[in-house]
Amino acid sequence: MELYIGNKNYSSWSLRAWLMAEKSGIQFDEILLQLDTESFYQRLKSISPTLKVPTLIDGNITVWDSLSICEYINDTYLSGTAWPQDPKQKAKARSFACEMHSGFHALRNALPMNIRAHRYVELSPAVLQDIARIDSIWSQQMAEFATAQGTWLFGKWSIADMMFAPVVMRFFTYEIEVSQASRAYMEFIVSQPEMQTWIQAAKAETEIVDIDEAGVDR
Amino acid sequence: MELYIGNKNYSSWSLRAWLMAEKSGIQFDEILLQLDTESFYQRLKSISPTLKVPTLIDGNITVWDSLSICEYINDTYLSGTAWPQDPKQKAKARSFACEMHSGFHALRNALPMNIRAHRYVELSPAVLQDIARIDSIWSQQMAEFATAQGTWLFGKWSIADMMFAPVVMRFFTYEIEVSQASRAYMEFIVSQPEMQTWIQAAKAETEIVDIDEAGVDR
Ligand SMILES: N[C@@H](CCC(=O)N[C@@H](CS)C(=O)NCC(=O)O)C(=O)O
Ligand SMILES: N[C@@H](CCC(=O)N[C@@H](CS)C(=O)NCC(=O)O)C(=O)O
Repeated sequence: MELYIGNKNYSSWSLRAWLMAEKSGIQFDEILLQLDTESFYQRLKSISPTLKVPTLIDGNITVWDSLSICEYINDTYLSGTAWPQDPKQKAKARSFACEMHSGFHALRNALPMNIRAHRYVELSPAVLQDIARIDSIWSQQMAEFATAQGTWLFGKWSIADMMFAPVVMRFFTYEIEVSQASRAYMEFIVSQPEMQTWIQAAKAETEIVDIDEAGVDR
Repeated sequence: MELYIGNKNYSSWSLRAWLMAEKSGIQFDEILLQLDTESFYQRLKSISPTLKVPTLIDGNITVWDSLSICEYINDTYLSGTAWPQDPKQKAKARSFACEMHSGFHALRNALPMNIRAHRYVELSPAVLQDIARIDSIWSQQMAEFATAQGTWLFGKWSIADMMFAPVVMRFFTYEIEVSQASRAYMEFIVSQPEMQTWIQAAKAETEIVDIDEAGVDR
């Protein structure tokens, strides 16, 4: 099984699929392609119909799009356990994941993932609204499931957490203010060993992708 | 079970969930709220955490977001049969659905769903690229599954078709040129009795939502 991803510093969609693959314990080869280079498109041409990362190749099966990869791994290797088992909680977790997948454009555009950076960006009303919604999701889930050691959105890890992991990284980079409960969730996420591995690799990268460099250094 | 939707003429995300509910044969009450009105927000305030339609209420379970509603109905009432059963085809169908859910912003913004209208809009390179990708998805699936009577993307209806139904309506409104195979798919979709019901209702609506009125009359 091969997972094609982009630069760890910048590729927010890749992080979701990679974290899912790691958490699920499947064996996979990671193939990192530099975003915005000729060889990126050359390599993906025969691999992915969208020419985007992440793309997962599992034997003769091609899966592209981060949410689709999460669902595929869950169906194929985890017997569905990467969603909460209670139907009400499952519906909620999937609604969060799909809401995240299809929305939050203002936030995505204004605050590109840029793990090694520490920046200031002026926040427009639309970005503030996106931030408020995310803060409310995280803090409401923490109110329901939090423990002293911190926890996942639904107590146990689920695809919902995978979908929000890049947002956690964005909030650190731009020092976004959130509730204490959300802050505890953010710290819990970055404390995961898999996240530490990704973050260390991101910090070691030196390539620069201009369109993802927003804001001014703090 | 109650499904909250927006104006049938304009609400593209609502159409997906409504068509899914119809195709799956579940009993539901349809509650239509006028987009962009005070009462829309008043009604949704106690119903939907995003204040958006579609939202499905099934007993004590709330599901919001069109893709999440499709997955919920599939899990709960259709034993998973709304995705192709072959794992390779299922991965492909879900990748199309998730790609559609998270992308095509240029197309969505330039060509808002407006079923009763017949318009001309100048197409930017980004919109043309979105159109080309959709045309390639539809025509490749038709090449694999087409019959003389027309057919669904995977031969049998699936959530992938629900996700593209609003795009079909956009392409008719703005007279978007596509391959013959894609055109056959579009005609097959609008010939469905459920779609005819929706379209007739959309045409009977008289409310105007300014931000969804794009282009000039043909
Ligand atoms: N909806 C897709 C989006 C994937 C995406 O946009 N990936 C970016 C990198 S994070 C990419 O490959 N960009 C290359 C390009 O657009 O040329 C997903 O969830 O995987
Ligand atoms: N990702 C959501 C998007 C839902 C959405 O944006 N719905 C629009 C109508 S089509 C809405 O409710 N707009 C009201 C508003 O944003 O105030 C979905 O798939 O259901």
